[in-house]
Amino acid sequence: MAPMTTFKGDQFDRSLFESVIKRRFFFTESFEIYRLAPSFRGDNRGLFDYGPPGCALQANIVDVWRKHFVLEENMLEVDCTVITPELVLKTSGHVDKFADWMCKDPVKGEYLRADHLVENVLQSRLDRGVNGPLKNSPKLDEETIAEYNDILAKIDNYDGPELGDLIRKFDIRNPDGNGEVLPPIPFNLMFKSTVGPSAAAPVYLRPETAQGQFLNFRKLLDFNQGAMPFASASIGKSYRNEISPRSGLLRVREFLMAEIEHYVDPEKKEHERFQEVVRLQLPLLDKATQLAGKTTCRSITIEEAVTSKTIDNETLGYFLGRIMLFLLKIGVDPSKLRFRQHLDNEMAHYACDCWDAELLTSYGWIECVGCADRSAYDLTVHSNFTGTPLVVKEALRTGPVKVERWQASLDKKLVGPRFKRDAKAVQASVEGLDQSLLERLASELNAKGVVTIDTATPLADGTSSVELSSELLTIQKVTQVQTIREYTPNVIEPSFGIGRILYCLLEQTYWHRPQDAARAVLSLPLIVAPTKVLIVPISAQSQFTPIVRRLSSRLRVLGITNTIDASSASIGKRYARNDELGTPLGITIDFDTVTDGSITLRERDSTTQVRGSEDEVLRAVNNLVHGTESWDQITQYLTAFSTQGQDND
Amino acid sequence: MAPMTTFKGDQFDRSLFESVIKRRFFFTESFEIYRLAPSFRGDNRGLFDYGPPGCALQANIVDVWRKHFVLEENMLEVDCTVITPELVLKTSGHVDKFADWMCKDPVKGEYLRADHLVENVLQSRLDRGVNGPLKNSPKLDEETIAEYNDILAKIDNYDGPELGDLIRKFDIRNPDGNGEVLPPIPFNLMFKSTVGPSAAAPVYLRPETAQGQFLNFRKLLDFNQGAMPFASASIGKSYRNEISPRSGLLRVREFLMAEIEHYVDPEKKEHERFQEVVRLQLPLLDKATQLAGKTTCRSITIEEAVTSKTIDNETLGYFLGRIMLFLLKIGVDPSKLRFRQHLDNEMAHYACDCWDAELLTSYGWIECVGCADRSAYDLTVHSNFTGTPLVVKEALRTGPVKVERWQASLDKKLVGPRFKRDAKAVQASVEGLDQSLLERLASELNAKGVVTIDTATPLADGTSSVELSSELLTIQKVTQVQTIREYTPNVIEPSFGIGRILYCLLEQTYWHRPQDAARAVLSLPLIVAPTKVLIVPISAQSQFTPIVRRLSSRLRVLGITNTIDASSASIGKRYARNDELGTPLGITIDFDTVTDGSITLRERDSTTQVRGSEDEVLRAVNNLVHGTESWDQITQYLTAFSTQGQDND
Repeated sequence: MAPMTTFKGDQFDRSLFESVIKRRFFFTESFEIYRLAPSFRGDNRGLFDYGPPGCALQANIVDVWRKHFVLEENMLEVDCTVITPELVLKTSGHVDKFADWMCKDPVKGEYLRADHLVENVLQSRLDRGVNGPLKNSPKLDEETIAEYNDILAKIDNYDGPELGDLIRKFDIRNPDGNGEVLPPIPFNLMFKSTVGPSAAAPVYLRPETAQGQFLNFRKLLDFNQGAMPFASASIGKSYRNEISPRSGLLRVREFLMAEIEHYVDPEKKEHERFQEVVRLQLPLLDKATQLAGKTTCRSITIEEAVTSKTIDNETLGYFLGRIMLFLLKIGVDPSKLRFRQHLDNEMAHYACDCWDAELLTSYGWIECVGCADRSAYDLTVHSNFTGTPLVVKEALRTGPVKVERWQASLDKKLVGPRFKRDAKAVQASVEGLDQSLLERLASELNAKGVVTIDTATPLADGTSSVELSSELLTIQKVTQVQTIREYTPNVIEPSFGIGRILYCLLEQTYWHRPQDAARAVLSLPLIVAPTKVLIVPISAQSQFTPIVRRLSSRLRVLGITNTIDASSASIGKRYARNDELGTPLGITIDFDTVTDGSITLRERDSTTQVRGSEDEVLRAVNNLVHGTESWDQITQYLTAFSTQGQDND
Repeated sequence: MAPMTTFKGDQFDRSLFESVIKRRFFFTESFEIYRLAPSFRGDNRGLFDYGPPGCALQANIVDVWRKHFVLEENMLEVDCTVITPELVLKTSGHVDKFADWMCKDPVKGEYLRADHLVENVLQSRLDRGVNGPLKNSPKLDEETIAEYNDILAKIDNYDGPELGDLIRKFDIRNPDGNGEVLPPIPFNLMFKSTVGPSAAAPVYLRPETAQGQFLNFRKLLDFNQGAMPFASASIGKSYRNEISPRSGLLRVREFLMAEIEHYVDPEKKEHERFQEVVRLQLPLLDKATQLAGKTTCRSITIEEAVTSKTIDNETLGYFLGRIMLFLLKIGVDPSKLRFRQHLDNEMAHYACDCWDAELLTSYGWIECVGCADRSAYDLTVHSNFTGTPLVVKEALRTGPVKVERWQASLDKKLVGPRFKRDAKAVQASVEGLDQSLLERLASELNAKGVVTIDTATPLADGTSSVELSSELLTIQKVTQVQTIREYTPNVIEPSFGIGRILYCLLEQTYWHRPQDAARAVLSLPLIVAPTKVLIVPISAQSQFTPIVRRLSSRLRVLGITNTIDASSASIGKRYARNDELGTPLGITIDFDTVTDGSITLRERDSTTQVRGSEDEVLRAVNNLVHGTESWDQITQYLTAFSTQGQDND
């Protein structure tokens, strides 16, 4: 395909772009015809339907994803339920921690997401150069500008009370009406419901596909015949009850995710295929750079990033490389892609390191893929709670070895009477203590005669820690013969927001013909374009019908999606419509076709045309679709063809 | 593929079958490791996760579906949200009518679905030949047996009060504990939640994908450039909060649907491609046969069924034929397929005729595909409520014509003061009256001086009808010149439950080797099999590794999914495992491969093997996968090969 030449990011006109998306029904707000009904109540933003081209684009992106990740690396794809019992999400930490901070404007009755409020107000003050909402607000001085910029660079790093401090300090108010807002409170982002007529226990719509994969870990490991490392994957809808969603497809309440959970031995985070990606250059924005208040990327090889520990390990580096290759394959502009490391407070409660692939759009840099190291967090908490071991057992390669280990034991006669209903929980918590903690507790117990231990599950009195004296608890070093090594895998999780990727791709591939801003083009690559080929007969005469049908059917047999437009509009208008739909190739049937069987093939971006026999053109189309030939190569053996003004009708 | 010879329906052993499904992780109950936790509460049955082979099988069925329906017929695929505002589902009738009847057992605190209760108890009495739950119950007489059979044949035709009568008349009790149950009450089958921090209005998880398609009708018609007939389609999850789900995948609360909404002119229900299906024989069980208390099918051509009006029209007949072709393509046993017409009370509130494709399993005949004529119901109610016209406008082919029409007009000066806030609603209702109603009202108004009119939306006082006197309302015949014909399309809806189809297919393709009941095989056809090819090196020696990798990679380039099993198990065990996974083809690499490059290809059902060069075998595999050659054809040009006892290791 010819390169995009007429579109520059700074010329991007969002309203023109949005009118194309709407006109061609890529997507639309859900239940649009109801939104104007007077009895339509409630907050139903952040919900979108995909029309035929959006739906096909989405299916094609998912298809490429499945081939690029699942099939290429033999991942174990699963499909788990969206409905999830509260207990599962309580254990995973989502019931307590999966929340955003929000401020209520008591006058308007509106809820505002606290970080967005601070960000929007400070950015607007910077843009207007004044330090307040009113016309006679004082001008911003250099020091305040620097302070604002520093806050904006770290905006994802503040928790609720800190956001509350900023709101007070800078007198930040609801831009809609200038009312003061109440201090930030947390709002859990999960949709709640109940199951069955008894409605006995709440359920949630999953906020990520990951938990279903973790709960099936044991079956997956069995299915993989015990071999490590391996990955599971899942493509499906997830739900987040956003506080106040805006910006179209970028912040929605129901969205398609594609997630990979790659299980690795924590002591072997090398990756077998690391060599395949080492030379790739990644545009990185690391944590240190952001905390210094800067946003400039540096482009370094994956090898260098892993060696310098900018990226923690080979497996994480490998996946960042594979993510980049995927994004480029579906048509992302490499100059509008970066990998940003999460700041500490910004990370999800389960993550210990995280990089986002961000795509540049008219809304700024948008997080589209997360790649987190969730460590052993999830498997550990589910295993502790259910008592089901979610571990890998491997024969020691060295054969049996003697090892010294710290071992804790409780005096069972005393524990029962002392802890009653909690005895089992206390026992389980002591068994769950790891070696380094045991070593520390042993010396503490020795010194003080008592230690405090956190319990995995809450106790009868609601607390979750317990004091154990040396009467009850013994910790000593023992020598054991080990033949098996047992460990809880760490999880590296590349997680893709398909809707966000789709939106960013549409923005990045949108441009218009230099001569006419109304002639829009979406330069979607063949691999993801909703329809590959448009077939247009030059007129609606019936002599063309059998030729059109035969061509369409031959393409379908080749697995190439095509559309016939036999409407009475001019050829130019029909092409223009399909340029907006991102259809890469057009076949024209004219009066010469009837006599000599030749047909014309048009390339969307350059509008150049070539001509050949039906067989020649179909072979060329097939090669283009499968990526075995480029348009330039096609033009070398098929005759150039021009129809005066056809593309300007 | 060789025909199934060793399996007969009556030999089916469900526990053996289920152990294969579980062992090979086709699917499993969701959150299984949590189900035993003491604090796990609530009714979480009817929720299932698909493991790798189940997930791949599902994806392949969906892929065939998309090609067979969406691409073959240029349907407009959309993807709409699951979350749906109450108002939409109130209008569609689901809030009021999408319910099942249930009985509470007050002693056990259990809820039972009323029709299932009656069915199970009467069936169990028939099976045991006695007329009551206890050992000394009287024997069933001929008359009662006939009565029970008659009720069972019509079980889907009873409403709640009728089921209550049956429960009282036959003293039907909860089989679990023999307690009396309370009279049936309706239970709405939709999951409820709220959106956003304000939680101002309830939303539901959609019970079908159809409503999202209907709400977008206007955009879809535009996208189709106004041409009729056309179809939209959607593949996605839907949710039904079943009262008491049992029978595994057959009755679940979260499930994948694939639905088509085919919009037709109610006056032209012919179908352009009807001739392609007329000679297909459909096994039909029509309404009249069922009401006569019989369950025997008759097999007739689609042509005959439509001509005799057994099937109402060509479009419905065309889709029943296409549904049958789809089911046969994915491997359904033609002797275990029938089309059953719905009884009047059984039909969904929106349907005017409906046929189910049912598949025979160990649970009996299972409804897997519905094909309903929803008439103009949905488009009409949404259009009336929102005021958005959901109609097709066509230029009259005959040119402008004069028509006589009844026209109603309200005296606007009087209507405002008389109806105040309701004036608009009354006005809209009068405008919405159709011609036949107007004709009747005209004579009534003439005779009595007053008529009563139903309003589309409830009035301020909660009523939904209004009296209009001849002072307010005039109805007269006028002559108009029409150039445009305007109509609300009828909708023919083929609706597929993918999970049910998947389950029935697994049961229907399951059998075991005659010599060993533990050697199970799933004869899934290549087109849907989770993995097409198994690659097995004869031993784990490293000399095979590069050959195995090259083969796997060459197959992947051809788009053919494959698995490598280089474990230390015997070849026979590795094949047996993959027979249970339904893998149709196996390639073996042995010591001869290293010297002469030849490899072995094995066919799952017959276990026959052939041998050839790598290129020859890959070409054969490619032809088998694409359906251009059969196994019999392959065996004619590749050398037969046998390894003594390999398949009996």
